[in-house]
Amino acid sequence: MSKNKIVKPSTLPGFMELLPEEQILMNFMRDTIRKNYEKFGFVPIDTPVIEKSEILFAKGGGDTEKQIFEIKRDKNDQALRFDLTVPLAKYVALNASHLTFPFKRYQIGKVFRGERNQKGRFREFYQCDIDIIGNEVLDIANDAQIPSIIYSTFKDLGFDKFTIRINNRKLLNGFFEYLEIEDKAMVLRTVDKIEKIGADKVKEELMNEGVLESKCDEILNFINIKGTNEEILKGLTNLNIENENFNIGLNELDEVCKYIDAFGVPASNYQIDLTIARGLDYYTGTVYETILDEYKNIGSVCSGGRYDNLAGYYTKQKLPGVGISIGLTRLFYQLREAKILKDPTTKTLTKVLVVPMDEDKKYSIEVASKLREAGIISQVYFDSGKLKKKLNYANKLGIKYVIIIGEEEKETGILTLKDMEYSNEFKLCVGDIIEKIK
Amino acid sequence: MSKNKIVKPSTLPGFMELLPEEQILMNFMRDTIRKNYEKFGFVPIDTPVIEKSEILFAKGGGDTEKQIFEIKRDKNDQALRFDLTVPLAKYVALNASHLTFPFKRYQIGKVFRGERNQKGRFREFYQCDIDIIGNEVLDIANDAQIPSIIYSTFKDLGFDKFTIRINNRKLLNGFFEYLEIEDKAMVLRTVDKIEKIGADKVKEELMNEGVLESKCDEILNFINIKGTNEEILKGLTNLNIENENFNIGLNELDEVCKYIDAFGVPASNYQIDLTIARGLDYYTGTVYETILDEYKNIGSVCSGGRYDNLAGYYTKQKLPGVGISIGLTRLFYQLREAKILKDPTTKTLTKVLVVPMDEDKKYSIEVASKLREAGIISQVYFDSGKLKKKLNYANKLGIKYVIIIGEEEKETGILTLKDMEYSNEFKLCVGDIIEKIK
Repeated sequence: MSKNKIVKPSTLPGFMELLPEEQILMNFMRDTIRKNYEKFGFVPIDTPVIEKSEILFAKGGGDTEKQIFEIKRDKNDQALRFDLTVPLAKYVALNASHLTFPFKRYQIGKVFRGERNQKGRFREFYQCDIDIIGNEVLDIANDAQIPSIIYSTFKDLGFDKFTIRINNRKLLNGFFEYLEIEDKAMVLRTVDKIEKIGADKVKEELMNEGVLESKCDEILNFINIKGTNEEILKGLTNLNIENENFNIGLNELDEVCKYIDAFGVPASNYQIDLTIARGLDYYTGTVYETILDEYKNIGSVCSGGRYDNLAGYYTKQKLPGVGISIGLTRLFYQLREAKILKDPTTKTLTKVLVVPMDEDKKYSIEVASKLREAGIISQVYFDSGKLKKKLNYANKLGIKYVIIIGEEEKETGILTLKDMEYSNEFKLCVGDIIEKIK
Repeated sequence: MSKNKIVKPSTLPGFMELLPEEQILMNFMRDTIRKNYEKFGFVPIDTPVIEKSEILFAKGGGDTEKQIFEIKRDKNDQALRFDLTVPLAKYVALNASHLTFPFKRYQIGKVFRGERNQKGRFREFYQCDIDIIGNEVLDIANDAQIPSIIYSTFKDLGFDKFTIRINNRKLLNGFFEYLEIEDKAMVLRTVDKIEKIGADKVKEELMNEGVLESKCDEILNFINIKGTNEEILKGLTNLNIENENFNIGLNELDEVCKYIDAFGVPASNYQIDLTIARGLDYYTGTVYETILDEYKNIGSVCSGGRYDNLAGYYTKQKLPGVGISIGLTRLFYQLREAKILKDPTTKTLTKVLVVPMDEDKKYSIEVASKLREAGIISQVYFDSGKLKKKLNYANKLGIKYVIIIGEEEKETGILTLKDMEYSNEFKLCVGDIIEKIK
């Protein structure tokens, strides 16, 4: 092999590849998300990474199409999925007759987007999605359950201070209908800047866009409704806006808030926020964002909402749904950058390293097997060398316990257990070691 | 949306996409494999699906290159990985200074090969790999540990009758050197057919290929060494072959067998098999195959071996290793085809469905939350409708318990728990329900 030309090893830019100690943390996060999704009764699906282009782009065009990773192979036009929503729509349309509705599925998998190369932007990243899909109808109480799943998940991820922001698109749309504003997107975009640039600037920009001053005031008045959720709901009611969509939306928001309490989400962790809108042409009812209170600049770490029809491009069956997505790769990256993720104290999952002191490793192997049978992750150090080198291996990996096995230990069955953290030693039999470690 | 042209939903041929009830089984298998890999002290890595083509094809050419999924994007030549070994080699070469050797890693992920379209062949499939990588050296005891991991994994997957077949490439190579046979590959290919076509036909084919009759007899004599592992080792010793490689290989095989016992693998689950060779230009020492005794036609379900140098194409550092791979997608497919996988009795992970009988769902939500807190996967049925429809939902999904909540239940706190399997009912408070279900 030494005669080969050496290819310099590298990983493509924009692709996350972690060291094992980081990967252990990442997996902990992924497992935590999965466990929470399952706890609420969602079932797994695992659609292919590669799909037909006609499926991926049934909706047509847009930025996503420019970011696509196309496959050069076969006659079929194929590409890598850019989200898990389009594959879900295809899946439900394809398998509808085998599914039981409401269909509650989760999917955790990699998606691909040819983002411009810049720090914190990934071209391959994990999305962790849940959706509840109804057949023709889907009760509003489902919208109230979503925040409880977000709450439970982020609590388990170790966060206390986070806010699930909730709004309703019907309420927003109705409000704009009432004001007879056509370019809702522009208004939403402008209003979205209020935290950054302040109310006056927002008004100025709106007027520059041709919105009448009286309407600007009504808009600012609307998004200035603040307070507890109850106060906001009351404030919205007091606007006395005569518009059907507005009032349906208000009613939905009211229902959602009523049930969120029952789901056990503390009032401090959710908040009606009239400025959030999410994807403009997709969501049609409740929308969610989740903000880490102490790291607001990270932006939303979990977003989603209610939509009228999941799979209109693939089936005539009407499939309303509600769902959220956690962009895990980006979240992990941001938590690490913000030093919220603690540096790993261990590079391993191993609890015990068994170190044989002579050539006969049998006894050491048996000890490690017994520990594993008791559920303690253990490995034997097989390479020859001095004790110092062997202990160094445990130290480098952060393995907490080392068991040293020489002639005497084999004869007596009394083993030396070294606690590497506190560097003290115990003389114990295997059974007692298991007891002690557990 | 109804005005859209409908694109017929479909999944590309050769791509596995399971219904949720099957996916639950598949995930169980994947989790079991992962749990076992972790139990033996392996740490996770997760390399990108997309790599530079120059990395993937550093070794150059071959069938794999014809099967590649290339990416049409950017200037960089990019393609989808076709195994997890090449990415591992790159990873170790790239990160060697951050890793602690012996480096024990597992990776479970999808790989991609443009296989010809046929039943049971997949273009996207999971590989579940472990490898132990040494820096310059790697003790032979590691080779003995691998069968214990295979054993533990397949036991946990629910198998009892399987055989881990073990051989040694140095032994084979030395034997051919001793016979002065050049075309080892041809001999191995021919010998491999012995179970199918019998010894006479093998001899005939070998002679047709120009192997002297006396040598054919020695070959058949060699592969006819049968019996217990001890007897085979004795039989090999008794051949008295004076060839260095042969004797190194024999010694390695002897060591491996000695330690396998210590690792607790029953003698009935492993067997020296002098006919197996695995990848001809890759493995250099111990090789493994795993056969389900009652389904031999499935072929090997877990294979691997020892290699001298993992990453010769990317670094001058010598990195010997030993590893195995389980082709999970194919395994799942074959177990299902062979009806070894039982039909799922449930389409859900949910244990309890809470059914509110009136419009006020608060109490039902609270009950489900309490069950979840106690670790019982629960969901509330939110859609309106008759009780029959709601119970039908539980029946269709195979949810074992239903709790029905009406006015009386809310007042008294005494709930009706229906066991859908035995169709009997109990009147219990939430605490007792948790007790009963647990």
